[in-house]
Amino acid sequence: MVITKFAIPDIIFGSGSLTHLGSCARRLGARRVFFVSDQGLAASGWVDRVLEILDDDHLDCIFYDNVNSNPRDYQVHEGAEIYVREKADVIIALGGGSPMDAAKGIGLIVGNGGRISDYEGANRVEKPLPPMIFIPSTAGSGSDISQFCIITDVERQVKMSIISRTMVPNISVIDPEILLTKSQGLIIASAIDALAHAVESYLSPLSSPFTEIQALRAIELFMANILPAAQNKDPHALHQLSIASTAAGMSFSNAGLGILHSLAHSLGGIYDVLHGMVHPILLPSVMRFNLPSCMDKMARIGSQILGRDEVTPQRTAVAGIDALEKLFQQLNVITSLREVLLDKAYLESICQTATQDACQLTNPRHASWEDLRDICEEAW
Amino acid sequence: MVITKFAIPDIIFGSGSLTHLGSCARRLGARRVFFVSDQGLAASGWVDRVLEILDDDHLDCIFYDNVNSNPRDYQVHEGAEIYVREKADVIIALGGGSPMDAAKGIGLIVGNGGRISDYEGANRVEKPLPPMIFIPSTAGSGSDISQFCIITDVERQVKMSIISRTMVPNISVIDPEILLTKSQGLIIASAIDALAHAVESYLSPLSSPFTEIQALRAIELFMANILPAAQNKDPHALHQLSIASTAAGMSFSNAGLGILHSLAHSLGGIYDVLHGMVHPILLPSVMRFNLPSCMDKMARIGSQILGRDEVTPQRTAVAGIDALEKLFQQLNVITSLREVLLDKAYLESICQTATQDACQLTNPRHASWEDLRDICEEAW
Repeated sequence: MVITKFAIPDIIFGSGSLTHLGSCARRLGARRVFFVSDQGLAASGWVDRVLEILDDDHLDCIFYDNVNSNPRDYQVHEGAEIYVREKADVIIALGGGSPMDAAKGIGLIVGNGGRISDYEGANRVEKPLPPMIFIPSTAGSGSDISQFCIITDVERQVKMSIISRTMVPNISVIDPEILLTKSQGLIIASAIDALAHAVESYLSPLSSPFTEIQALRAIELFMANILPAAQNKDPHALHQLSIASTAAGMSFSNAGLGILHSLAHSLGGIYDVLHGMVHPILLPSVMRFNLPSCMDKMARIGSQILGRDEVTPQRTAVAGIDALEKLFQQLNVITSLREVLLDKAYLESICQTATQDACQLTNPRHASWEDLRDICEEAW
Repeated sequence: MVITKFAIPDIIFGSGSLTHLGSCARRLGARRVFFVSDQGLAASGWVDRVLEILDDDHLDCIFYDNVNSNPRDYQVHEGAEIYVREKADVIIALGGGSPMDAAKGIGLIVGNGGRISDYEGANRVEKPLPPMIFIPSTAGSGSDISQFCIITDVERQVKMSIISRTMVPNISVIDPEILLTKSQGLIIASAIDALAHAVESYLSPLSSPFTEIQALRAIELFMANILPAAQNKDPHALHQLSIASTAAGMSFSNAGLGILHSLAHSLGGIYDVLHGMVHPILLPSVMRFNLPSCMDKMARIGSQILGRDEVTPQRTAVAGIDALEKLFQQLNVITSLREVLLDKAYLESICQTATQDACQLTNPRHASWEDLRDICEEAW
């Protein structure tokens, strides 16, 4: 076995855990917090709730919400300038992947200087970041757990993957109550993102006994809870999906991802396609492409999806993929690439760009740009 | 569900991972390392190996080996004095629980001053410790993962439990090759210590979905690997026991322990009984005592031990305990308290002291000193 690393933040988990935010910040030495979120979370009242908690703890707060989905490089640099000018000392982010990734980028520039594109790739960050506390508002991105930070380079139209131990926040405060205010569509897209993290990281050649157990558990919890969570916002099911997302985050942060995420980053960078929409479209085709290179692991995934084994590993693996496709239809999500991309003419540039993505390196099977194009064609 | 915390160190795991020690220390800013180990590890050559690795990385090193099993308060204070005098900047510990716990105590005094007994109990440490890297030499104590530090107060004849997030080292470097040089007796005692951590923390009222999965996995790995590891030092089995010990550490560090450990600490403090020898003697009786208060969890443990379920949860639970007792006999370990304690007259003071231990608080069933005495009588 190879030598393996496993790193996660401190986790505070449970309904109402948000109320511990002030004491967490104080433990990290906070006096003046830089608080990153977005306008959707402001509208839903959660930003005010955080501001109130920080105020109760007598913590000053600079609020920054100039963050898009697929956060941009210039937003990171603007945030870092304000952080320095306002002499903040701890970063708090509340959001889905976008505010959390923006916050990571801001911390990176505050601690290391330069341009965000200087750090694209794995292990290129040398100096520490300010202390960070993240509060995920969706059960899916795993950014509150992970070493990944995805920022769009606007000029190059590329979603850069920045991967470093320093991108893991100090503390992740996970309060499943926040999920109750999310739309059905966002709950489903986020949960499928978590599923994709679990599947890709389980198949990664960098997976380890520490990550594999978390990936399998995430798949099991996804299957058991996605329908009641999506259909009725069942609080227990949402709670379990939060655990699934956290487990998937522990797995992919340490084992890496694969070509599904290379393609999703490429689609997001060039055409600003929402990350969570890509996975139900491409995941089955990606799993079929990877199948010959990792039959046993694909059978284990199939077994978690189905809750049983078929007569051979191959049948279990294939039946698992089929069951996922049916589930995606039942969830009424988009499953054809043509519905998010208007013209096949874009495919070559998307697939060429994807081959440059860091997630390409941990796919279990080598994929050329033509392979990626064939996957996209299958999902068209 | 209550709000739950989960914190673990960064883990570097695998055969040969020890060679990464120098770069780990550098990442934490080391120039002058304070290295804690014991004479047994010096004799086996592992201390020299660590010194060689640090030297290759041009790191100065102060070596401290005045550490007993059941490390003493004065050893902690002596170590802290030397650390400060020598202007060290990072602590490395290589050992079983004793050198690692001594290193935690040294770091605590360096960072916080005062006497080690000032910090007895939970969450009484306020200031940070120097960066710490631990290298476990046994698969059992879990001290490289955990928030627990156990130091003997010589004057009071008490093993103090100091429990704090700050006791978790920054990095745990787990190299299963070190286990190959251990005696059969030590391998067995350490593995049963890990099993005891898993069982007690699984039953703790503070257990969470994040700890329970680790506890169950530790029990499963223990059962599958203890015989080949003990009988033939099978490298794969030792490797799996390292994972079991790490998983059990993640569980008990965050969920706490119970009356088995209260009693073990008391026996170790007053009569210097080796920690690992106590568990096979008392674990079955403790499990029987706890059974009525947590039948479902005990059945789940029984199921992991047996690899199957009996017709009722109670039968599964009881059959699990019986199977453990048989296994301990097969492993040829001491299973009667009278073989380590000469006179029943000592029982009252041992059990009275145990009721003051911090582990008492997280037992699933309240236990008076008389209850503890009855448990000891059953195991006599």
